This record gives sequence, structure tokens and C-alpha cells, in this order.
Amino acid sequence: MNDDSFTVTPWDVTGPVDYAKLIKKFGTEPITPELLERIEKHTGPLHHMLRRGIFYTHRDMNWLLDEYEKGNKFYLYTGRGPSGSIHLGHVVTWEFVKWLQEAFDTTLLFQITDDEKFLFNHKFKTTKETYDLAIENILDIIAMGFDHNKTKIMIDTDNAKTLYNAALPIAKKITFSTVKSSFGFTNSNNLGEIFYTSIQAVPAIIESVWQKKNVPCLIPHAIDQDPHFRVSRDVLPKLGYYKPASIQNSFFPGLTGEDGKMSSSKADTAIYLTDTPKQVKKKINKYAFSGGQATLEEHRKLGGNPDIDISYQWLRQFFEPNDDKLKKIEDDYRSGALLSGELKAYLIEKVNAYLKTHQERKEKARDQLDKFLISD
Amino acid sequence: MNDDSFTVTPWDVTGPVDYAKLIKKFGTEPITPELLERIEKHTGPLHHMLRRGIFYTHRDMNWLLDEYEKGNKFYLYTGRGPSGSIHLGHVVTWEFVKWLQEAFDTTLLFQITDDEKFLFNHKFKTTKETYDLAIENILDIIAMGFDHNKTKIMIDTDNAKTLYNAALPIAKKITFSTVKSSFGFTNSNNLGEIFYTSIQAVPAIIESVWQKKNVPCLIPHAIDQDPHFRVSRDVLPKLGYYKPASIQNSFFPGLTGEDGKMSSSKADTAIYLTDTPKQVKKKINKYAFSGGQATLEEHRKLGGNPDIDISYQWLRQFFEPNDDKLKKIEDDYRSGALLSGELKAYLIEKVNAYLKTHQERKEKARDQLDKFLISD
Repeated sequence: MNDDSFTVTPWDVTGPVDYAKLIKKFGTEPITPELLERIEKHTGPLHHMLRRGIFYTHRDMNWLLDEYEKGNKFYLYTGRGPSGSIHLGHVVTWEFVKWLQEAFDTTLLFQITDDEKFLFNHKFKTTKETYDLAIENILDIIAMGFDHNKTKIMIDTDNAKTLYNAALPIAKKITFSTVKSSFGFTNSNNLGEIFYTSIQAVPAIIESVWQKKNVPCLIPHAIDQDPHFRVSRDVLPKLGYYKPASIQNSFFPGLTGEDGKMSSSKADTAIYLTDTPKQVKKKINKYAFSGGQATLEEHRKLGGNPDIDISYQWLRQFFEPNDDKLKKIEDDYRSGALLSGELKAYLIEKVNAYLKTHQERKEKARDQLDKFLISD
Repeated sequence: MNDDSFTVTPWDVTGPVDYAKLIKKFGTEPITPELLERIEKHTGPLHHMLRRGIFYTHRDMNWLLDEYEKGNKFYLYTGRGPSGSIHLGHVVTWEFVKWLQEAFDTTLLFQITDDEKFLFNHKFKTTKETYDLAIENILDIIAMGFDHNKTKIMIDTDNAKTLYNAALPIAKKITFSTVKSSFGFTNSNNLGEIFYTSIQAVPAIIESVWQKKNVPCLIPHAIDQDPHFRVSRDVLPKLGYYKPASIQNSFFPGLTGEDGKMSSSKADTAIYLTDTPKQVKKKINKYAFSGGQATLEEHRKLGGNPDIDISYQWLRQFFEPNDDKLKKIEDDYRSGALLSGELKAYLIEKVNAYLKTHQERKEKARDQLDKFLISD
């Protein structure tokens, strides 16, 4: 999506994102209180990302729940394009996926799109580079604690036989015109980029292919990836499959808060899962955009603004699931009782606790690779 | 290639083909007496399709022989798009491939492009249809008597992992502009058709991928397939591979001789490997275009014209390898000593003998499938 002030495409997010405009432009549905209530009936207490509107929009969630209530259980599909190290922006979505998986007791297909990254990124000269990144990223995914009995991880190049075969009928239904208008492709796009859209559509139907009956699919993803699945939703019904349902979150901001989302291309604004406690402390203290006042005196007098304060936003979006605690932080910050430095210290503690657990689990992840990876 | 009077593309051959014009337009090299001599040094007596100029043009055969003489042996690659039953037009090329394989003692990779046929042909609704045709066609290929120790048959959808992975770096180097200009693709082509060019290029390098060193490749094929390999020849050196060499034959004409090549789309003009002796007799007697005169008397007096007589042309191109016998047939036909009916009877005998052997071998081909097919 292009707008005077911001851009949101699967490959590019810049400028201050207007989420209300985006919902209109993309044509997704807002998540209403009624829908939240309906979800809660099945899951029990809602995840804070639902309560707080971090996951804020969807497609066909009511249909999905209709099917679920009829006993036609869905599976979850999400993905990762392995272009570099995993940062907090990625795990926000995945933690929610994990919650959904546990709350609805579903299977999950995690697609690692090493082919996509190779094709779309000039810096990669061989598919070995993107494959190595895929394995490295998978260790992080495993370290998040997914249940290997209910989670399959698919590496596109390893599972190319499955993907290519299932992609053929899809590819036959999509013309170059469609990807031109959906993604802004031109005659200079390479053949792999052009074909990739059909590969991308496969995981949303692969359980139906495997089970030889229609199985609903729910795709949780950051809102910028929506154009991919819009094409899938157009074409899959032509082949007799359900449209995949989806649920989208807003972006997890980088430390400086300048751009729409945390990005590996701006290393200082991202916190990686491999960062040390010292790095985390340094990055947050140095770069986390503050909504506090210029001096201690002014802050005590005027209070801070949590709405633009990245430390507060990170707590709200991810690191402080407890609503009461978050409310107190917000109130204290607005009143000036809580200083920026204190807020940052609290966040640093939370982030480092998260990373410590993650890094310990990752140590043991390599041994579990075989339990998660599927073979063709 | 489009011309006022004839068209030759990988998907369409119509009109009376001017092979001299075609060689210029496609930019291939004519096979010279010097090249024939050079080949003969290695193979012994030349195949009649070389002696008689049925295989009449090439790319880089001299380079291939340079490498061969240095001990850098080539492998052969040819293919089949399984859209229907095999007819004599197909086996002409394959018999020559078999001769090359035996004469140079090389391995052969036979690619069955079931994905291509599915993607390019509207009549196929599922990939199962093209896969079933692939297996059926492979039985015919096996029945031709290829040595399973030196021949691998690859079905694109079965070997999709190998093909897709090797195609990725190729696809990254080819833009939509290239396939637009090479094949006349438009924005209405489907994503699979567009990507297919990269899959098509893989078999020409797959031995190099497998052996992790550059292995020369020779592709014998009918001249209309040249545009595919022209793109391969452009892109493969950019990835450090050799350009594949190639050797091209002119078309085996249909019975009526009206169009450039025998085609399944005109069933009456083709003889299939499954045809019975009775069908063969009936088709040749009824449809084979004759260069003879209107009446017996005129024929005895004026003689026939073998240059336009399909029965004679089939003998020359394929069914009468003995030059002396062929010469006598030609002379007798020109003089009027040999009648059209007699010429046809001779051809019918030859065709039915060929088909009898083939059909007997095909009976036993299914048991040999596993020896030929490769798995990913």
C-alpha cells in the first residue's frame, strides 16, 4: 500500500503507519468486542495481544469459528523468510501463534521460505547461504517452546517436491497480470520471484492435500504480508479449497520508533535473540525513544507520554502481559512518578529475562531438529 | 520463428518449412562434411540420419568433441512432454539419441516434462492426468531398448526437489522480459509457464551439479525446441556452467505431408507406436501423400517423384538405413519401375516390423520402470 505518508508492502514498510487507513485499504475486518468474546469462549482468558488490540484485524475469523464449532478444526500456518537473525519483531507474532496453538489445541505448519529470500535478495549468491540461515532461524523457532508433536517445520528447498507439485495447479490459475497488480512486479522481476506466489499459497492448503479433504487454515501474520494471502484467497477457491482465514498484528516498533516496524536493516533499532544482557541494556538506554521530559524536574512536574514511548509500547505489546501492572506503569509514567530511566530499567529486565530463557532453550534446539522437520 | 510462409516455435509448427532459412534465423551451424568426418573417427560408420542430413544442424559440436578428445566426456540429455501417445515423429529423434549413446558410450538423462504439459495445456485439469501419461510414455521409451545402466529417466514432478533447487539460481538470472522476447509470452501467461524455462534448463547442468564439476552436455532435439535451449545457453555460463551443445533434426513429416511435422493433433497423419498392422496399412494406403502419377500407365511412362513422396521420405529418414537399397528404390521410383502401391507396401512392412518389436518390448517395460526412474 502506498500513501502520501507511509508505505506498507510485503517487502517495505516506511513512515508512520495509519492502521485505520490500512484496514480500509487492505479490506480486512476489525476485530470487534463480539469476536473477542466468541474467541474467549473457546480459549479462556484472552492473550494480552488480543485484549490490547495488537492483533487488531482479520479475515474470516467468524467463518473459522463456525467450522470449529461444527468440529471442523483448523490448523495454523505461519512462516519465516530467513534473511538474517531473528529479532523481537518476529517473536511477537510467533508467541501469539503459540498461544493460539495451545488455546485451540491445533497443529501448526511453520514454513521457512529460504527460496523466497534467495530469489528476492541480491545479497545472496547461493541457496546454501539462505539454507544455512533457515537452519539457524529454525533453532530459534524451536527454542520458543513449540510442541514437536503438533508442529511441523517445512523448509521450502527441502520440501520442494511437495511444494512444487501442490503449486502447479495454483500457478496455472494465476497470470503475470495478477502479480503485477498485486505486488507491483515488472518485466524486470526474475522468473523465481514471479513463480514464488504460487509456492507461498501452498501451506494454506497442504493439510487439505495431505488429508484429501478440506481443512480450514488460519494464518496469523504481521499486516504487511497480507497481499500474499490476498492472492491465495482469490485463487484457492477456484481449485475447490477454502479461503484461508487470517489474523493480523500491527508492527512491533524499532527502538527509535521512527519507522513502521523493527527491521534488521537498521541494526541499532532492533534487539536480536542473540543479544547479550549488556547489549540489550546499552541499546535500550541509548536508542529507545522516550516519551519523557527533557529534565528530571520537568518530568516530575509534567509527566511522560507513554503513547510515544517505545519502552512503554514494548511492555504493552509484548513484555508485560499483566494488565494491572501495565496500568500502574502507564499511570505512574503519565504522572511523572516513574522516570524514563526507571521505565527503561524495567523493560531491560524483562527483555533480558526473556532472552535468557530463549538462549538456554536454543542451546538444546539442535538436537530436536529432526522432530520438527518434515521430509518430502 | 515466424515467416510469411511457415512458423516454427516450440509449441507450433505450420507451413512448408524452409530449413536453410531456419538455420539462419535460429543461428545454428550446419553440419559440415568435416564435422561428419570428425564424428566418424569416434563412432565408426555414421548413422544414416547423419549421412542423409536428417540431423543437419548443431551448436558447439566441435567444442564438445574437443572436450571429448581431452577425456572430458559429455552426457546426453533429451526429453519428452507427455501430452498423448508416442508417434513415429518422436522415435526418430530418440533412435538417434540411442545411437549416439552407444557410439560414444555415454550416459543419457531423459526428462519427462509432465509439469510443462500440465501448465501449457488447457485440456489437463489435474497433474495426475499428465503424470499417468508420463508413465505410459516412459514405457515406450524403455521399449526402445535403452541400457538401464547408462540411462536415467526423470519425471519432473517426481524429481521436483532436484529440479526446483537447481532451477532457483537459474530463475534468479532470467527476467520476464527475456521469456517475453524468447517465447512471445504475455501478461496472460500463467506463473508456472513463466517459471518453467528455469526448470527446462536444469537437465543440461544436472550432471555438473551432481558431480560437483563441469560436465559437457549434448542435447539432440528437433529444431523447433531450439528457443528453450537458447535461453539455457545464455544463462548457464553466468552461473559458471558450460553452454550445452546441441544437434538438431528436421521434422519427420505426417502422412499427408501438408504440415511441417507429424503431430498428434492430426491423428490421421500420424502413426502411433500402439497402432495395429491393420491400422498402419490402412493409414499409409489412404493418407500417405504420393509422388506417383495419376494412372499406372502414366507412372510407368513418366515415373514418380520421391522428393515429395511421403513413403519414400519415411524410408529415407528412418525406415531404410541401407543406402544401396534406398538408392535402388529411388531410381526405380523415378524411372516408373516401382509403383506407388509397391512403395507403400514396402514401407508398411518396414513400419509394422518396427512396431512389432516395439510392442513386444513394451509388454515387458513396466517391470523395468524402477531401473530407469531416479528418485530425488
